[in-house]
Amino acid sequence: MFYAIGLGLADEKDVSVKGLEIIKRAERVYLEAYTAVLLVEKEVLEAYYGRQVIIADREMVESSSDEILDGADKVDIAFLVVGDPFSATTHTDFIIRAREKNIPTRILPNASILTGVGCTGLSLYNFGQTVSMVFFTDNWKPASYYDRVKENVALGLHTLVLLDIKVKEPNLESLARGRIVYEPPRFMTVAQCAQQMIETEQEKGEGICSKDRLAVGVARVGADDQEIVAGTLEQLADADLGKPLHSLVLIGKRMHDMEKDYVREYAVDKKVFDQVFARDYHQS
Amino acid sequence: MFYAIGLGLADEKDVSVKGLEIIKRAERVYLEAYTAVLLVEKEVLEAYYGRQVIIADREMVESSSDEILDGADKVDIAFLVVGDPFSATTHTDFIIRAREKNIPTRILPNASILTGVGCTGLSLYNFGQTVSMVFFTDNWKPASYYDRVKENVALGLHTLVLLDIKVKEPNLESLARGRIVYEPPRFMTVAQCAQQMIETEQEKGEGICSKDRLAVGVARVGADDQEIVAGTLEQLADADLGKPLHSLVLIGKRMHDMEKDYVREYAVDKKVFDQVFARDYHQS
Repeated sequence: MFYAIGLGLADEKDVSVKGLEIIKRAERVYLEAYTAVLLVEKEVLEAYYGRQVIIADREMVESSSDEILDGADKVDIAFLVVGDPFSATTHTDFIIRAREKNIPTRILPNASILTGVGCTGLSLYNFGQTVSMVFFTDNWKPASYYDRVKENVALGLHTLVLLDIKVKEPNLESLARGRIVYEPPRFMTVAQCAQQMIETEQEKGEGICSKDRLAVGVARVGADDQEIVAGTLEQLADADLGKPLHSLVLIGKRMHDMEKDYVREYAVDKKVFDQVFARDYHQS
Repeated sequence: MFYAIGLGLADEKDVSVKGLEIIKRAERVYLEAYTAVLLVEKEVLEAYYGRQVIIADREMVESSSDEILDGADKVDIAFLVVGDPFSATTHTDFIIRAREKNIPTRILPNASILTGVGCTGLSLYNFGQTVSMVFFTDNWKPASYYDRVKENVALGLHTLVLLDIKVKEPNLESLARGRIVYEPPRFMTVAQCAQQMIETEQEKGEGICSKDRLAVGVARVGADDQEIVAGTLEQLADADLGKPLHSLVLIGKRMHDMEKDYVREYAVDKKVFDQVFARDYHQS
């Protein structure tokens, strides 16, 4: 059996009891390590599971899936995914490949940032489509996310923005010289995301991500040191939420009072929050 | 500390290792039992935890929250929620009340049907707002969900429809005679939901939930006997997915080929699925 097991969001103890039992008895244990990262090191997982964990980076998952699936028709293979296995499409792809080989599969769902973001107090029923934000470079500032956010904004819905992660990216200069040297991992912060949204807005000018739009930044959801900060995009562009992983929610206008009361507790500046809310968000 | 602990979707072993540790040491353990139900009985949980579990029904949560929170400033209280604690707004409300009493709170997220529905192969990024479907009666057929579905359909997005649960509903005839007798629990099936959607469509006539729209029904997501069935709403109105809990997804047109390939595997009739898809869903 091929098991895709969600690890949840924070540390080694967020795995389900059922998942842990499978990990302990599986023939091989892989850890998917490029769409998200756990807040603890691989060594912590290995010590806790009492098992060797093989890191499966993008290259391995995309080019050596046969190797990962090898023998799964006879023995149990555990493929660990930070968060929930279905939150990244790439794993659907994986299950399709297993199916083609007549390998039985089983998915163990777990907490995902898609629902973990409920910690902001914003109702998960009032979210529209989720978008992703990539690191802008000097000459590459993709703005396709803006149109999806615009669709959500038009309906008054919140938008969860998932932030870019760069793990095991080759250094381009070295690559040009024929050597593969990996860059240190990079994780986008709430501040960087807010800044990039304001940048796109300056280009597009449709008022979707203006600097006075309300948003909430979250960091290390589900962990002991989880942080939540609410404010305008301009305020969030200056906020420091510490270590990764970060995510951002752009607040929609279709917001219940209870959502507002809850999220207001996290405001950088409650006065500013109330003013902007009363001016732009209040629906009578 | 007041802990709201997600139990995940299927059975007693879907709780996280961290959650289980808290349950074992908590002073009192409550189980929220009206927004969702686990697929196992309370007694199974009690035996597994080695703890007494107090059922917290709607009445208790709404009128005796003080009692539940009592002492949580000094001892640990565990409040168990099937799925993820933030998937039902009512729990946000609970946290606000704890906050007002200066009781520290901690949320342990877990799998939710909102992400568990990824088991259909439909990308969670292509979902719009989630809606709820209540049991229609002869003279009460609320259609407000239809407008939200319409917003999703206009954007080509999928819609997750959560199905009504009636637990501990008083029998109205007995109530009129001054006696409280509870009805046996009722759980809406995929077939009932599909039927009601077709009914609303017949009334509204905007082509949002026509009987030839494609949808996917799921039952017991995350459990060993999980079932997935895809087809037109008319086909699903005849489908039997067995025991609760059921959910339904109305498929949007903004669908990748990979999503289609994955979900097609579950079609009641692949030929019909392909025909409808080619005619109404294919985007060149």
